[in-house]
Parts: sequence; C-alpha cells; structure tokens
Amino acid sequence: MLNTAGQVIRCKAAVAWEAGKPLVIETVEVAPPQKMEVRLKILYTSLCHTDVFFWEAKGQNPMFPRILGHEAGGIVESIGEGVTDVEPGDHVLPVFTGECKECVHCKSEESNMCNLLRINTDRGVMIHDEKSRFSINGKPIFHFVGTSTFSEYTVVHVGCVAKINPLAPLDKVCVLSCGISTGLGATLNVAKPPKGSTVAVFGLGAVGLAAAEGARIAGASRIIGVDLNSNRFELAKKFGVTEFVNPKEHNKPVQEVIAEMTDGGVDRSIECTGHIDAMISAFESVHDGWGVAVLVGVPTKDAVFKTHPINLLNERTLKGTFFGNYKPRSDLPSIVEKYMNKELELEKFITHEVPFTEINKAFDYMLKGDGLRCIIRMDG
Amino acid sequence: MLNTAGQVIRCKAAVAWEAGKPLVIETVEVAPPQKMEVRLKILYTSLCHTDVFFWEAKGQNPMFPRILGHEAGGIVESIGEGVTDVEPGDHVLPVFTGECKECVHCKSEESNMCNLLRINTDRGVMIHDEKSRFSINGKPIFHFVGTSTFSEYTVVHVGCVAKINPLAPLDKVCVLSCGISTGLGATLNVAKPPKGSTVAVFGLGAVGLAAAEGARIAGASRIIGVDLNSNRFELAKKFGVTEFVNPKEHNKPVQEVIAEMTDGGVDRSIECTGHIDAMISAFESVHDGWGVAVLVGVPTKDAVFKTHPINLLNERTLKGTFFGNYKPRSDLPSIVEKYMNKELELEKFITHEVPFTEINKAFDYMLKGDGLRCIIRMDG
Repeated sequence: MLNTAGQVIRCKAAVAWEAGKPLVIETVEVAPPQKMEVRLKILYTSLCHTDVFFWEAKGQNPMFPRILGHEAGGIVESIGEGVTDVEPGDHVLPVFTGECKECVHCKSEESNMCNLLRINTDRGVMIHDEKSRFSINGKPIFHFVGTSTFSEYTVVHVGCVAKINPLAPLDKVCVLSCGISTGLGATLNVAKPPKGSTVAVFGLGAVGLAAAEGARIAGASRIIGVDLNSNRFELAKKFGVTEFVNPKEHNKPVQEVIAEMTDGGVDRSIECTGHIDAMISAFESVHDGWGVAVLVGVPTKDAVFKTHPINLLNERTLKGTFFGNYKPRSDLPSIVEKYMNKELELEKFITHEVPFTEINKAFDYMLKGDGLRCIIRMDG
Repeated sequence: MLNTAGQVIRCKAAVAWEAGKPLVIETVEVAPPQKMEVRLKILYTSLCHTDVFFWEAKGQNPMFPRILGHEAGGIVESIGEGVTDVEPGDHVLPVFTGECKECVHCKSEESNMCNLLRINTDRGVMIHDEKSRFSINGKPIFHFVGTSTFSEYTVVHVGCVAKINPLAPLDKVCVLSCGISTGLGATLNVAKPPKGSTVAVFGLGAVGLAAAEGARIAGASRIIGVDLNSNRFELAKKFGVTEFVNPKEHNKPVQEVIAEMTDGGVDRSIECTGHIDAMISAFESVHDGWGVAVLVGVPTKDAVFKTHPINLLNERTLKGTFFGNYKPRSDLPSIVEKYMNKELELEKFITHEVPFTEINKAFDYMLKGDGLRCIIRMDG
C-alpha cells in the first residue's frame, strides 16, 4: 500500500445524487482522518435494506448528494490524532453505530446505545468538525450513518470501527456489520432461548434468518418461520426453520395459529419485519408464564404498539433490541470468531456478488426481493 | 385441639350476603376436607383490596352468599385423602393461587401460573367435586379464590397451602399471603434492581410499599414514589422511599418529570396501581438501554396498553408479574425466613387490628384509605 497518510485520496465512490435514482460511480476526494477518526480502504461492502430506505428517501428530509453503504469490511489506511485502538493495516468492520467506551451506555453492561455514536441517520457530516470528508471538485458529499462504505476509501470515527481477526475473509464477514449481527444478537443476547425451546421468527429476510440461525445455534427444538411470502420457507430451512406459517393462509390471527401449534405459545418470538401488526402478533404468540418476545424491526414513526395488559400480567416479557445488543467494538470480534470456528454459517446469507461498477444491480436484487445479501467487490 | 377430623365443624364465619352490604357473622358448617384438600383453623386474617373489589362486585357477575378473605395464617386441623405434604398441627399460609407441582407452569423455573390452581375468581366451589364445603342449614355458601379465610375454619386445596416455620408469628406473617409478597417479589424476582440503582414505584398502597421495601432490601440508591395522594409520602419513607412525585403537581407527563430527575430515566419501575395511564407512564419512565418496567396492578378488562414501539426498540423491557413470581408452596417459606432474620420488616405494614366480630371496621379503614393492613383476630 502506498503511504497516503495525511494526503487527500482520489478514488471511486458510488454517489447517490437524487432520491431513487441509480448511483453514479464518481471520482471523489477523501480528506485525511481528523481527531479520533480513521480512514479505511473498503474491500467489500454489501447492501442492506437501510441503504435502500435512505436512498428512496420517502417521507424523509432528503440529504443528497450522499455516499450510502454501511455493511463492509476493510483495512485501516491511516489514523487521525488520538487514535490508539487501531493502526494502519488492521482489518476492520465499520459499523453504523458506535462505542465511545466512556458514556453511561458504554459503561453499562446491558446497553449498546452509545450517547456519542448511536446511529444518526440525519447527520451527513463528521462529529469532530461537522464537515464532510468527501468532496467532488470542492463540493461536499454527505456521509451516511458515519460509514459511507460505497467508496473505495472512507473516513469513520474510531468508535465505529471493530478490529477483527486478520485471517477472517472480509468478503464473508463484512455482512456482520449490520443485519446479520442484528438478527443473531436478538436471539443469542436478548431472547436467549433455552436449549430445546420453541422459537417463532416473524419475517424471513436476512435479519429474520439470522435470528433463526441464532435459534439453531442455541439449540431450539422448533423454529417456526412466519412470513407473508411462502416462497421463503424453502430457503429458511437452511437456517434451521422447521415449520412455516403464512398468516394469509389462515382465517384467524397468527398468534392463535401459533398457540394451537405449540400448546399455548412459543417460548420465544423475534419480530424482524417492523410492521406493527406483526409486532403485536409476535408478542401475543409467546407462552404465558415465561414467554419472551423481542422486537427488532423498526416501524414507521406513527406506529402504536397496543395490547391488553393482561397479556403482560400473565408473565410475558416484551423487549426491544438495537443491533442485537452487541457493543460494536467490544463484541463484533467475537462474532467473527464464531464464524471462524464454524459455529455460525455466513455463506448461506450471501446469494449474489457484483463488481463495484455494477452496484446498481445490488439495488435491483433487493427491490425485487431476490436473495439475501449481495456482496459488492470494490476492486471490480 | 379437639379431634374434629372427619366431622363437620360448626364455627363462626363472616358471610357476605349481598354486594356492598356489611358482612354478617354467622354460624356455618364446614365439611371435612376431601381428596387433596386440607381444613385449616384460621388464627389471623387480613383484608386486601381484592376482597373489597369482589365484595363491591361492581361490573361483575355477583356470587353471593360468599365467604371472602385470602390473606391469612392458620394451623392444619385435618387433611383429606392423598395429602402428604402437610399434617395436622402444621403452621401454614393459605394462598389464593396454587402450585400443583405437576403442570408445565409448575415444572418451569420461571412461571408460577399453575394450570390447575391458578387464581380463579369466578369459581365459588372446590375443584374436586365442584361443591362448597361451607353451608348454613344445608344451604351452600360460596368459596372465594379457594381460600375463604373470613371463617374460623376453612377448606383449601393442598396446592394452595404453604407450610411455614412454626416459630413465625402468624399475626405478622399472615400478610405474606397476598399483597406484600406480590409487591416484594415484583421487585426482588422480576425487576431485580442492581445495588445502587434507581427505582420508581407507582402507587404507594400496601403492594407498592412492599415493592419499595424490596428495592430497599436490594440496595437501591434512590426510590422514587409516585402517587396522586401526597399524604402517602410521609409513611412511604419508612419503606425506603427517598423522593416523591405527585403527577397532579406537574404540568408535564410524570415520565418526563422522572427523566429529568434521573438524567434519562430510572433503572427500574414497578407499577402497582392498575391504572392504564400509570402503566404506560411507568414503562416510559425507565432509561433506554437497560430499563426494566414491571407491571403488577390489574387493570379493567377493556384497558389497552399503548406505546410507541421505539420506546421498546431503544432497549427497554416490559414485564408483568403475578404474585411477585413466587411459587406459593415452594417460595413462601423463604419469605417468612426473610422476616424471621429481620431482613424484611412486616410490622410497618400492619396499621390496624380488630377482633373478628368487628371485621366490618377493616372494610371501613380500607374504603377510607386509612392505613395499610388491618389484622383480624379470629379469636376476638
């Protein structure tokens, strides 16, 4: 690697100029990392629903031009002032949320909602100086959730970088930056199904299948997948899903269907769609006395969760999670190790691969609901 | 004690003949215990809101004449067929809910909602033969929640009887049969506040003060009492309550007041009023990242719990509990020991005492909101 530290790097980036319009590969300038920042060479990135959501920008304050992307794997190119945790050459996963290690959340064993670096989708600049590190001919291009991985080089806060085993293949573990860890952690860290228990997973996209994978790893005896698309069941079997319920095929609420299948309800449920009705059904699907429902999917702002309090008083638990309760810097390395020791299977999440020049194909796959994760090779 | 086993016992009982009308001390016949039943000589009973609720019978299917009462301490007089866990002379607390030790709930470490003996307020007879053991001149008198302790003698299922240390003073530990254990267990078994944490308790009646007592025992650093009656704060201090909030004295939601007092929310909250607005406030009062809200109070049947899902997704937990998650037979003896070793203070819950002949005074005290628990001496 050339010594580019301290210099502006000119490289290729996929720029979203307008809501919903294909990304354009442009030559951008990437400024050197400032205080507590690191500049990364991105080798692989993948596409997540959240990228598409902010690219479509429906009902949002649009923020364009912007460099999207937040699931990725890369190598530290240079570090800014005050950075001691990583050094050039380290293999890392950038993460859309961070861990400052100093706030009350970082100091709590239970929380990963860092006060300083918690996800902020409305901020298009760096925290240090409220400026962008990306520009084209002097015109700034906005960042996205502090990562902007659809660029050969990007600048991120050191608190949003997890240093991982350099032997881990970045074209596989890059998917741990967001969705897969979110679903996996929802099960392993929050729902915590005991061995032999029954688990329902609502929504069999990548996050839901990662939740199912967590249930498989935990040794659940039955994993019931719930989705409006019956075609998803076949793929879901690979992730340990043993039974399938399509709510459209029943003329009673899905929570009643599940209660009948399980003699009163599942031990754990994990909601990965973000639809408010599914959230309520997921909660009401767990058994009284001990059932735990975990909400993962993010609903619309005006959604209201409603239930009869007796459903709670009968000793059910309702919890929400963010990024599977993983602390990005502290915990991601150990998930990578789960993959390295073959406990966690990542290959089955990766259904497509495209070169960077064809990044818009990844958007097409996702919009069509074709496959789970599309890896984008930055050298292509 | 005379040997009365196998015989009908004639004794005094306070009969509720009509909704809301003073109880009448009558001579009743108490039949011998049948299969898996025990007959108890009640020495002390106390009055709980639930007795008053079913005595007033507002909006209910009235069930009269009935012998109310469910917080009590007594001695086993005789046992029915199949009973092996207790014998005549044992000191016991009858409980309004039971533990068969054989159903999935009893076998679960987490649940106390026994399939066979879970509280049933609509059943006025014994499970074994669907008949009452109480009669007056051959006319049956209904039981209440399987206990009917407003009688010198009563018959209960053995699964609803906790055998306790015979050295424990029954005129004190009788209050552990219901409300005090409910509040205490909500904190110690469900909310589980770490030492040094902040706890909010909604509703400073006996159950809420028992929840505060649990927080005091757990070593909470701040216990914030919330009640619409400011006069309750003075008494609440005895139970470890350090600060007081009367929602009527603020022009913003109480959850916002608490968030300001605690830099974002309390670590744990316990809702003991059963009012739906208080339930929602209690949940929204806990800190994101780690806060746990526990619902104890029972709302009206048509109440709906509503919150924005983001309050859950920000890593808050909402749980409900029934009888403080204590398994009646397995766990009550250990709460009695907590009192015996002076960890738990019960005397401060007992604010009145009346002889059995003046049982209606206990109702008057409760209806006026005067004091916490009134002990009724059956020999008086």
